[in-house]
This record gives sequence, C-alpha cells and structure tokens, in this order.
Amino acid sequence: MTGAGPEDVAFLANPRYRGQLSRTAAAAVVLAPADADACPVDAIVVSNPYLAYARISRALTPGEPWVPGRAPGAQVAEDAEVDPSARVEANAVVESGARIGARTRIGPGAVIGRGVVIGSETVIHANVVIAGGCRVGSRVILHPGVVIGADGFGLAHAGDHWEKVPQRGAVVIEDDVEVGANTTIDRGAVDDTVIEAGVKLDNLIQVGHNVRIGAHTAIAACTAIAGSVRIGRHCVIGGAVAIAGHLEIADRVTITGMSMVSHSIREPGTYSSGLPLDDNHNWRRNAARFRQLDELARRLRALERRLRTPDTEER
Amino acid sequence: MTGAGPEDVAFLANPRYRGQLSRTAAAAVVLAPADADACPVDAIVVSNPYLAYARISRALTPGEPWVPGRAPGAQVAEDAEVDPSARVEANAVVESGARIGARTRIGPGAVIGRGVVIGSETVIHANVVIAGGCRVGSRVILHPGVVIGADGFGLAHAGDHWEKVPQRGAVVIEDDVEVGANTTIDRGAVDDTVIEAGVKLDNLIQVGHNVRIGAHTAIAACTAIAGSVRIGRHCVIGGAVAIAGHLEIADRVTITGMSMVSHSIREPGTYSSGLPLDDNHNWRRNAARFRQLDELARRLRALERRLRTPDTEER
Amino acid sequence: MTGAGPEDVAFLANPRYRGQLSRTAAAAVVLAPADADACPVDAIVVSNPYLAYARISRALTPGEPWVPGRAPGAQVAEDAEVDPSARVEANAVVESGARIGARTRIGPGAVIGRGVVIGSETVIHANVVIAGGCRVGSRVILHPGVVIGADGFGLAHAGDHWEKVPQRGAVVIEDDVEVGANTTIDRGAVDDTVIEAGVKLDNLIQVGHNVRIGAHTAIAACTAIAGSVRIGRHCVIGGAVAIAGHLEIADRVTITGMSMVSHSIREPGTYSSGLPLDDNHNWRRNAARFRQLDELARRLRALERRLRTPDTEER
Repeated sequence: MTGAGPEDVAFLANPRYRGQLSRTAAAAVVLAPADADACPVDAIVVSNPYLAYARISRALTPGEPWVPGRAPGAQVAEDAEVDPSARVEANAVVESGARIGARTRIGPGAVIGRGVVIGSETVIHANVVIAGGCRVGSRVILHPGVVIGADGFGLAHAGDHWEKVPQRGAVVIEDDVEVGANTTIDRGAVDDTVIEAGVKLDNLIQVGHNVRIGAHTAIAACTAIAGSVRIGRHCVIGGAVAIAGHLEIADRVTITGMSMVSHSIREPGTYSSGLPLDDNHNWRRNAARFRQLDELARRLRALERRLRTPDTEER
Repeated sequence: MTGAGPEDVAFLANPRYRGQLSRTAAAAVVLAPADADACPVDAIVVSNPYLAYARISRALTPGEPWVPGRAPGAQVAEDAEVDPSARVEANAVVESGARIGARTRIGPGAVIGRGVVIGSETVIHANVVIAGGCRVGSRVILHPGVVIGADGFGLAHAGDHWEKVPQRGAVVIEDDVEVGANTTIDRGAVDDTVIEAGVKLDNLIQVGHNVRIGAHTAIAACTAIAGSVRIGRHCVIGGAVAIAGHLEIADRVTITGMSMVSHSIREPGTYSSGLPLDDNHNWRRNAARFRQLDELARRLRALERRLRTPDTEER
Repeated sequence: MTGAGPEDVAFLANPRYRGQLSRTAAAAVVLAPADADACPVDAIVVSNPYLAYARISRALTPGEPWVPGRAPGAQVAEDAEVDPSARVEANAVVESGARIGARTRIGPGAVIGRGVVIGSETVIHANVVIAGGCRVGSRVILHPGVVIGADGFGLAHAGDHWEKVPQRGAVVIEDDVEVGANTTIDRGAVDDTVIEAGVKLDNLIQVGHNVRIGAHTAIAACTAIAGSVRIGRHCVIGGAVAIAGHLEIADRVTITGMSMVSHSIREPGTYSSGLPLDDNHNWRRNAARFRQLDELARRLRALERRLRTPDTEER
C-alpha cells in the first residue's frame, strides 16, 4: 500500500500490513469490512480481499501471445492426436497415440508418453515428463520438471536381492489441479494413483504409488507421501511433512510443517509433531535427556508412590 | 482378490487383505502355506507370494515395441559408440565419446555427457542427465529427471566468500540399480561416488559426493545423504531420513522414516528418531516443555536426593 | 596422502587425515602451520590448506574444449540476443527476447524463457529451465534440472476451492551464485525472489516466492524455505532444514541439519532442533512419554510443592 500513488488501487489482504493503511496514498484500497473505518481514502469493501486481489490480478495479467501449432524441433508421433488449437513448443516430444486437447500448451522439452490423454486449456511447462498411459484433465498446470507416472517403488525381497514388481497402474490427474516444479507422482502398482479435482501441490513433493489425494487439498513443498496413502478432501498439509504408507487422513485435516505422520488421522483438526528450534547448547542438553525420558517418568512415579506411603501410614 | 472372477488367479501377498480370502471368487489364489487352509478355492502355495506375484506379473507384462536406432531429433556425436541394437529416442543427446551398450534405451530428451559409458539392457528414461565421465552398468533403470554426476557441494571458505572446489571424481552405478524420478547423485570430489549392484533408490533422494551405498540396499523417497557417507549392504532406509556427512552405517541396518542420523551406526538393527503426531494443542504444550527437559531432570534428581536424606536420618 | 608418490604434491586439508601424514611418500605436502613439524617430507605451509587445494585444483583442471555457436537441434528465437562467444548446446531452447552474455554456456536440453537475461561466463547445465523474465548474473552455475521462476504457491481460498494468485514477480540471481541439481526457486508474487551474490545452494532445495537469501550464504541439500523468508548474509544452513514462511534470519546464523525453524532468529549463533537417533525399542518408549511431558512437569511441580510444605511446617 505504501508504494501506491493516486492513480493506483491498493489491497489490504494480509493483516500484517494493517499498520500501513493510515499512510497509503492510493486512490482507493480494497479491504475487509473490519478495516473500512480506518481507511483514509476511498475503500472498496469486500468479504475476502485476498480473493478479490487474485481475481482482479488474473483479469489484469496479460496472456502470452498464443500461436497454435508446432514450434521447430517438436517431435509429434504421426498417430498422436493434437487439437489444431493446441501448441507444441520447441523440442517437445509427443509419443504415439497421445491425445492433446484444445488450447493446451506442451512446453519446450516436455515429453508426453505413449497413449497419454490431456484435456483442454492445460499448461504443461518446460521439461515436464508424463509417462505412458497417464491421464491429465483440463485447466491443469504442471510446472517445469514435474514427473508424472514414473514407476512406484515396488520391490519384492528375494532373500539376497530385490526384484522389481511391475507398476501396471497409471496416474489420473483430474481437472483444475496444479503441480509444482520437480514434484513426482508415481504410477500405481495395480490400480491408478489419483489426484482429485482442484488439488494444489507445491514443488519437490513425492506422491507414491496408489496414493489418492482428495479434491481441493493443498500440500506445501518437500512433503513425502508414501505409497497407498489416502488423503481426504479440503486438507491443508504443510511443507516437509512425511506421511507413512497405507495411512488414511480424514477430510478437512490440517497438518503443520515438518510433521511426521505415522498413524491414520480419523477426525478433522490440526495436527503437529517435531520440536522447536533452540540454541545449539541448550538443544544438546535437552536432546540428551530425551533418551532418559521413560526412565525419568518411572523415577517420578516412584517418588510419588513413596510420598503417598507415609501419608497412608500416618492415618 | 475380491475383484477376481472364475477366470482369474488372485494373490494374497499382503496380510492386511487376509480377511478378503473367504469371499474370493477367483479360480485359484497364490498364497503362503499359513493361509492355505483358509482358502475357499484352489490354492497355489508358495513360500513368498509377493515375490511370486512380482515374477508372474513381470512374465505377463508386455514389453513396448523395440525399434533400434535413432528417433527424429536425437543428436548423437559422431565419435559416440552406440550399439546397433540400442535405441536413442526423440530429442535425446549423446555427447562426444559416450558408449551405449546393447539393447539399452536412451529416453526422449535425455542427455548423456562426454565419455559416459552405459552397459547393456539399461533404461534411461526421459529427461535424465548423466554428466561427463560417469559410468552406468547393465540392467540399470534411471527414472525421468534423474541427475547423475552434477558437481558435489565442495566449497572452501575464503574469509568473506566461498570458492569452488573442483569435483574431479565421477559417479559409478553398478548393475541392476534402479533410481527414482528426480533423484540426484553427485560426482565425487577426488574419488568416485559409488552405487553398488542391486541398490534401489526411490524418488527425490539426494546422494552427496563420495558416498558409497552397499549392494542391495533400498532407500525410500526424499532421503538426504550428505557427502562421504558409507552405507552398508542390505540396509533398508525409510523416506525423508537425513544422514549427516562422513558417517558409516553397518550392513543390514534398518532406519525408520524421517529419522535424523548424526552418528555412525556400527551394529545391525532397527533405528529411529523423531516424534509422533499429536493434536496441535497437546503438541504445543509438550514441545514447550522440551526446552525445560534438562532442568526437569535436575529437579527430579534434587527431589530424589532430598528424600533419601530423611530416610538416612531416621535410621 | 597415502596414495601420493615422489612425483606428487599432497594436501592435508582435513584434520581427520592427520594420522596419515607420517606415512606419506609425496614429494611435498601442502599443510597448515600446526602440522609442519610432523611432516616427514617437504612442507608447503599455508594458512588455509583446503582453500589452497581448491585454488591449485582449479588451476590444474583442464577446461572442456570451447566451441562458440549453436549445436545441432538448438532452437534460438530470431529476436534472442546471443553473444557470439556464447555456446548453445544440442536441443537447447532460447525463447524470444532472451539475452545471453559472453562465453556463457546453455547446456543441452536447457530452456531459456522469454526475455530472460543471463550475464557472462555463466554455465547453465543440461535440462535447466529458466522461466520468462528472470535475470541471472555472471559466473553463475546452475546444475542440471534446476528450475528458476516457476510460479510461487499463491492460492486464495474461495470457500470450497482454491483460486490461483498470479505470480507477477521474477527471480533475480546475482553474480557468482551456484545452484545444485533439481533445486527449485520460485518467482515472486509481486516483487522478485532474490538470491544475492555468492550464495551457494546444494541439490533439491525449495526456495519459495519472495524469499531473499543474503550474500555468501550456503545451504545444504533438501532444505525447504517457505515464501517471503529473509535469510541474512554469511549464514550456513544444514541439509533437510525446514523454514516456515515470513521469518527473518539474521546474518551469520548457523542452523544444523534437519532443524525446524518456526520463529525468526535475531542473533548470530548456532541453532538446532530435532532428536538424535536411538535403537527403535528405546525410541518407542521415550517417544510415547513425550506425549506426557507437560503432565510429567506438572506432577514434578506438585511433588516439589508437597515437599516444601512440611519443611515450612517444621519451622
């Protein structure tokens, strides 16, 4: 707001900037009802200023020029079906039997495997890989370096070595999903891995085979989701979380960053684990005591018992 | 099993599905001896049903059509040696002096650096990068986006800035190794980084310079292995583990997911760290107490001493 | 040192190898003053042997042959400005309006977006993606698979779904920065994400939108930095650390590996969190007690109070 002048409209969407409101020189400020009285200039009052900002910003963001067709170096298999309104950028590869929908963009260097089906108005950014047989919906965004449909980590132990278990499922990504840069979503072992509509995944996330992520769930960067996990709808999962295999997480669960999830979560709510930062000296002392925690608890119990005994005897 | 009909063979490889056995309509079920009596249809009894499933599934999985040679857009240096039975896919790059073995596939967009040597029947998936001088064995699988042989994180501190230490080693990947999507394995500083035969790495794993991973060890996704770590043979390491630099881990060690490994592990066994998930309210209270843990232990000791003194005096 | 012969110069840069000094057969050893007396052969005494090693190794490392121009399959937009001394490798893509400086190398399969500006003597390795509008300085190294300028994770909640917030800032990478393989640095939402001069980032790091990393800070692999974090100059951050959004970290802060940073750090020093590894049996017992930690502290306090009371009464 402090950078806006008399020809600008400003936004007060984040309460941490409320203190700047009194100093704004903007022509008007988009803000929530609770902030209207404090606004020294014209106020445009909306129930959710951040959402208003998103919509106005989207409306004002110019699209890049759209030239349908194939850029130089794009390799498109003869039997691939690419909608005439779609765009295949330089040095992208579209393999045999793939189908690309209307106004979808295949970014430079992206690789679309055999038989992959992609809906309309989807953006596949540069150097994305979608392995054979996977299906991607409409209005999906896959950021650069995303890998969809690599084999899941399926191994059978054969005494002195591991043998590969074929990963015969695929990945299904429903409409309006966004996947961040270098995130990986593995194909299913038998059934498919499914990312339901409206899911938003940040960068460098691992989604194991046969995972299902419920509609409109958002997951922050660097989270690891092991195989066969089922995550509900409308969940919010922080960054660097790790979720062990085969767990179920209910709808509308929030998990704070860097939590370790080793049991299923049956009820909505907010869940956490981990320890807060401390200076290294204090941390070392306390962390060393953690190894004695069970012993400390037992010693405390013993003291409590001893102190109860004299009480009893006095009676 | 519940989806199989009278023309199917089903598998009971995971004990969590044992309850479905009584309802199967399959013609036969492949299962372990302990489950044979409970099987309502013909039983094919094997000692390890999951391994049997892996082998039968591999035998029944059709291979993709194999067309040796170079797809359009592939750039192969004149002095590279590509076996006539190998396949270089669309827009892949094979640089000067590289050697590609029999029936090996270089996926679309993959980049094989100068002087790289790759064995036979290896699959390099789309957009993999193998930097110059690295060596990859036979029957290896590198999933999309894998980076082999980027420089290790070698920095010398020069008072007010960092200076780069040349990373002159390479990466050696022995036979039958599988590496998951977007995993990175750095080249050695002086000696090589070595991934021994039969190692299985999941997605988004970091392997630092001069690490050695022993044969037939399996490591789950998002694990970070710092430089010069030596991991033994037949280890199983969970996802999102972090292993500090220069440590040694013995053979046949299991480390559970999200553990922090800051000391060497000399004995086989199962090791863990971290804290289980709790609801956010309880977690906050307990995490705040962690900072007092050393003090709590000292106060408990003081109480114990005080209570011992009167005992003594009473005698 | 033990592998060096009478025609070699050896280095003693890491104290852990001091024990090998007496057995060296090298012609001379580069070492620190404190080790000079123990050296059985000629000693080249320097204040910082590891830095001396880095500089000598760099001087002796042969550069790859440099052929300016465009390799086969490189796609360079007509209106891109590529310095005649620069090199665009096979199947790389340089989009409209990009500017590439002198003696800069664009690796095979790399994608340089619309209007990207890159300085001189920078190395962009294979399959890197730099999205439109980002700016990269001179003598920068981006390792394979790096993604610069993907959209930040900006979402506005609209009741039953998420709406995308346009990410209109860019990424600015100053001179002498090195970025490890498959690391991702997101573009800013309004202002730019900034990586200041001399910063060194390892592999598989996530840098969220609008982060600023101060000059000469080094960060190890797999660390996750959420949006709008400001990290000071000359910091050293270990691997697998997670830093929550909007925090500030002062200059010259060291954070040990796998720490969770959920509050700003105002003072230089070394900070840690997390728990050390234990054998699984002990860990389970102690971790279970963690959920009782607040209750244990209250029970200890109660005992202390009870024991103080009789003391008082005795007087």
